[in-house]
Amino acid sequence: MIILLTPAATEGDLQELVQNLEDRGYGVHISKGVEKTIVGAIGAPDQDKAIIAEQLSSFDYVERVIPILKPYKIVSREFHPDKSIIRVGGVDIGGQKIVVMAGPCSVESEEQTIETAKAVKAAGASILRGGAFKPSTSPYSFHGLGEDALKILAAAREVTGLPFITEVMDTRDVELVSEYADILQVGTRNMTNFSLLREIGNSNKPVMLKRGMASTIEEWLQAAEYIANRGNYNIMLCERGIRTFETFTRNTFDVSAIPALFGLTHLPIVADPSHGTGRVHLVPPVARAAVVAGADVLMVEVHPCPEKALKDGAQSLTPDMFSTLMTEIGLCARAVGRFV
Amino acid sequence: MIILLTPAATEGDLQELVQNLEDRGYGVHISKGVEKTIVGAIGAPDQDKAIIAEQLSSFDYVERVIPILKPYKIVSREFHPDKSIIRVGGVDIGGQKIVVMAGPCSVESEEQTIETAKAVKAAGASILRGGAFKPSTSPYSFHGLGEDALKILAAAREVTGLPFITEVMDTRDVELVSEYADILQVGTRNMTNFSLLREIGNSNKPVMLKRGMASTIEEWLQAAEYIANRGNYNIMLCERGIRTFETFTRNTFDVSAIPALFGLTHLPIVADPSHGTGRVHLVPPVARAAVVAGADVLMVEVHPCPEKALKDGAQSLTPDMFSTLMTEIGLCARAVGRFV
Amino acid sequence: MIILLTPAATEGDLQELVQNLEDRGYGVHISKGVEKTIVGAIGAPDQDKAIIAEQLSSFDYVERVIPILKPYKIVSREFHPDKSIIRVGGVDIGGQKIVVMAGPCSVESEEQTIETAKAVKAAGASILRGGAFKPSTSPYSFHGLGEDALKILAAAREVTGLPFITEVMDTRDVELVSEYADILQVGTRNMTNFSLLREIGNSNKPVMLKRGMASTIEEWLQAAEYIANRGNYNIMLCERGIRTFETFTRNTFDVSAIPALFGLTHLPIVADPSHGTGRVHLVPPVARAAVVAGADVLMVEVHPCPEKALKDGAQSLTPDMFSTLMTEIGLCARAVGRFV
Amino acid sequence: MIILLTPAATEGDLQELVQNLEDRGYGVHISKGVEKTIVGAIGAPDQDKAIIAEQLSSFDYVERVIPILKPYKIVSREFHPDKSIIRVGGVDIGGQKIVVMAGPCSVESEEQTIETAKAVKAAGASILRGGAFKPSTSPYSFHGLGEDALKILAAAREVTGLPFITEVMDTRDVELVSEYADILQVGTRNMTNFSLLREIGNSNKPVMLKRGMASTIEEWLQAAEYIANRGNYNIMLCERGIRTFETFTRNTFDVSAIPALFGLTHLPIVADPSHGTGRVHLVPPVARAAVVAGADVLMVEVHPCPEKALKDGAQSLTPDMFSTLMTEIGLCARAVGRFV
Repeated sequence: MIILLTPAATEGDLQELVQNLEDRGYGVHISKGVEKTIVGAIGAPDQDKAIIAEQLSSFDYVERVIPILKPYKIVSREFHPDKSIIRVGGVDIGGQKIVVMAGPCSVESEEQTIETAKAVKAAGASILRGGAFKPSTSPYSFHGLGEDALKILAAAREVTGLPFITEVMDTRDVELVSEYADILQVGTRNMTNFSLLREIGNSNKPVMLKRGMASTIEEWLQAAEYIANRGNYNIMLCERGIRTFETFTRNTFDVSAIPALFGLTHLPIVADPSHGTGRVHLVPPVARAAVVAGADVLMVEVHPCPEKALKDGAQSLTPDMFSTLMTEIGLCARAVGRFV
Repeated sequence: MIILLTPAATEGDLQELVQNLEDRGYGVHISKGVEKTIVGAIGAPDQDKAIIAEQLSSFDYVERVIPILKPYKIVSREFHPDKSIIRVGGVDIGGQKIVVMAGPCSVESEEQTIETAKAVKAAGASILRGGAFKPSTSPYSFHGLGEDALKILAAAREVTGLPFITEVMDTRDVELVSEYADILQVGTRNMTNFSLLREIGNSNKPVMLKRGMASTIEEWLQAAEYIANRGNYNIMLCERGIRTFETFTRNTFDVSAIPALFGLTHLPIVADPSHGTGRVHLVPPVARAAVVAGADVLMVEVHPCPEKALKDGAQSLTPDMFSTLMTEIGLCARAVGRFV
Repeated sequence: MIILLTPAATEGDLQELVQNLEDRGYGVHISKGVEKTIVGAIGAPDQDKAIIAEQLSSFDYVERVIPILKPYKIVSREFHPDKSIIRVGGVDIGGQKIVVMAGPCSVESEEQTIETAKAVKAAGASILRGGAFKPSTSPYSFHGLGEDALKILAAAREVTGLPFITEVMDTRDVELVSEYADILQVGTRNMTNFSLLREIGNSNKPVMLKRGMASTIEEWLQAAEYIANRGNYNIMLCERGIRTFETFTRNTFDVSAIPALFGLTHLPIVADPSHGTGRVHLVPPVARAAVVAGADVLMVEVHPCPEKALKDGAQSLTPDMFSTLMTEIGLCARAVGRFV
Repeated sequence: MIILLTPAATEGDLQELVQNLEDRGYGVHISKGVEKTIVGAIGAPDQDKAIIAEQLSSFDYVERVIPILKPYKIVSREFHPDKSIIRVGGVDIGGQKIVVMAGPCSVESEEQTIETAKAVKAAGASILRGGAFKPSTSPYSFHGLGEDALKILAAAREVTGLPFITEVMDTRDVELVSEYADILQVGTRNMTNFSLLREIGNSNKPVMLKRGMASTIEEWLQAAEYIANRGNYNIMLCERGIRTFETFTRNTFDVSAIPALFGLTHLPIVADPSHGTGRVHLVPPVARAAVVAGADVLMVEVHPCPEKALKDGAQSLTPDMFSTLMTEIGLCARAVGRFV
């Protein structure tokens, strides 16, 4: 931790600060510059550094407190230098093979779900996605079929052999959803629902954590740390676009977050170009981009009949479009030494 | 709903669209312009318009679907032209008097809480605030004292007569927190935790809904609608700053949201300049600004000793600073025909 | 300057860095922490610190370079602890009196301009505003009457005695506009037009520098430094809203920038609630907010007939609305110990 | 243009609006819905629609004015359905071959420039880039060597045969820079410097227009229209990252803007991953992503010795890294049916 004093800070202020830091168990280094004095606080690793930074900031002779250590540990590359691989239903996530998760935004019926599951499997997908509990902005929209949808997804798994991922939104549903699903999804609107993160951390279920739409990469990794910190290390991170001033796309897909994460964490990285763009004709180019930027997993919305979808019709591929996309993805994977 | 066709749309496409709309029960108006054809869909009020808009957008001859009606009803000014007043423990929220909620970010001890409660009451605050369950970005930070904090807040209410507001983060805690608190708070990180909103909607407890840090005013009103839609109309909306590119302040306090809400909704409006700025010297000017812009309530963090606070020390006022602020607020309230 | 090394940095890397810094004339302090090594570089004030920071960042053993000094000098409070007052045509800008600049977005005709000038003067404005050269997003929009507009503004000054402010967009026009106008305006779209800033810096004309719509407060002060650095200290800074994800308002008016600037710079601060909100009914509450937050000047668009305005009709007040606003502003000014 | 009336609008208001529109030459369609009345205005193509929209918005019975036509024409795909190809010094920009522009951020010396030019040519670049006039945020930073740099770039062209691109920042420099350079660059900070755009529009010089860091795709295309509207159609558009809340990267590279532009305009599309990320290790993955997303041109900063660069050292590749990148780019180009 580095503490930068204001130009008006006196010698007495400096003494007070040094005393304060030493009382907390820190070693102290003082650098007096031409215009500013800088204090380095070293050691004392078991402290809550965020609180201390806030407390020191409240002194009026402190201009700025600069944290030095990353605010997450277990999920960092330094903690685990090799990439993590998560095995789900015979599928290795995080290895050389690029894994594709596909399916409808929402489970609407058994027929629609099984039809889609067969189609995406035939085109090369390894994991089925489908919403049972849906977070809609409007209270008057469709909110999913709930447990019935979980049963339908399980039936589709039975038929196709594809493991499935589905979202959980409520701490009270974690147990129920875990009974059915192979992977839990935490959606963008719940990335900072810390109670939910902790509850999932208490299970050992694989989980895909979507980036909050206004969350920095650092905050996202801290959210992952909430889960890891409870003992569940089976975490994937999903870039799905962030909120910016641009309104042409539903979100702005942050492609550089993929290689950035690669350097910061050992967790597998998922890309969701469907929510990332919100427009069907932009899904394939952004999916290709994600692959060559280093994504381990692609998650794509596919619906047999987008114009009748109960959710996200505007961004869902038809099975034919998905099949074409799989071919393109295969070529892109090869260009970066991977395969689909 | 207005549907704008692409320049390439054919007469056959238009026929298909008209049929589709009529099948859903809409009346249809067609306007053929020089370059574009526009279709207006009228009536059919019991439909899920967001889904229909998505579905129609998936046709490749549809360029854009423009919704006409606001996506919220109960919380709109049109539904209830007079301003709503919420009565909590003898305090009227939403009337001529500007109500001030003050207290520490987190409840740390009975002594700290009661001392602060007395001080803010003496300075003119009507409601005590204090965190029992805290949403921290880091899993390694302080997360509040939980039920013990609720008991301390109740004790402070006993001593001072001030009703209190405190945050609830988990659907499973709504009942517990409701037993103690006078007002529930939904924090910025949970504005899109729809399960939590529904659970609170099922109670009749007054609730203050903070704006999500990346939520538009329209999304915020839809979140309020989630609560209202379950029967709980005792809702206040709290502007607490949004996330932007500016890093000098912790958030960017959106002062124009206050008069904007005034035109859109009948719900009382709260301003939180402490989180809105994150810097103690900016709290008083932004608090004054909120008052003359039309806020009904101010929420301010006060701590007897900010440099020892377990949370948000950098933005907490001392009791002395708060007392000065109350005088300034009184003068500003008078300038707009209100009082403190 | 503080340089933070990566955990992988070797002793040899540290030696190389120290040598590099000493060669540049810096004194060096080394702090070895439990997990990280920090190097403080002191002195060597005549260097281009931004370049050095970039160069050092390119070493792969450097994790981060943290600048310590503010990147502006002449415009900082530390350089000139008292507030600056700029005198224009008998009006003191930056003193106890809150100065109001008002007038049409664009000069459309002599009649419209003189009528508006008389009306705003009668209501209490001290300075006339009006656009001669207009920066429109579309090439097909109205771009102003150019020099004819300058002549009309001069005629309005003749009639009313009000000095006037008008925008200059092109380095080649600085001399021409300076001949007519009392204050030059640099618009939000030209805040980073550094050639223009330098050209204005070479004159001694008072200038109002609008904040770039995506510029941080620090970048804005650096833009002001471009002007000051050439010898022109007669600079006002105008907050006019920043670009965010919110689309209900044209921009998000950053009210906290006003007290933030107050602490950072001695330059007078202007608030423009017309562009800051883009909606006429939000102009008065945001104008009031700006005054109690500490603005020295208000700039407001007034048009005798907004529904016929050639620009910004949706945000222009009528003379009657402006007159009411002036009364409100007077009450708010009094609440903070100032007057209009 | 569609005009949506407020629920409070009377029959008289509607009559007034219809009269107003008819007086302007519009045909009028009225759709009365259950809750809202909508008015469609058709025809009258020679009007300034932005002004009319503003004027109509100022009526208090008008809730919203929705424009229907795109605010740009010449640069739209509809105007010119085939992709445009711009030929510069024997290089076709916008065809099957992906063109690479590379070189130092700033021209520092003849030796550095020629050395870099030779290296990037050897690795496969077709165009040299190098800054002569530099827009630095700080007035105390390096601003480029000006005309001397232009001469050095011309010398490097002489030696290597590579045409070059360089930035122009001042209307007064357009002629001078055009004498030397093969392509003019308009930087992100000058995208809304409309005087500069017009001046370049008056020449016939190829120009690369960078996206403003807070500009929407629509505004960017309007900026291009400023140039096209003067007769210069030799325009390329360069995505270089936008400003968002994320601070890990210098900007957020908006990869989806590339396919979005592909659908909206016939102009060639350039990607600049160096400024888009600001971090050298993110440049190659984002460059690859841009290629498979459909970019026609890559622009990359290369410096023989980044740790001595006078600008942007932290994002410059060494010639060796650039050479590796060219191989990767070649593989990615092939994956999408193109070549380097």
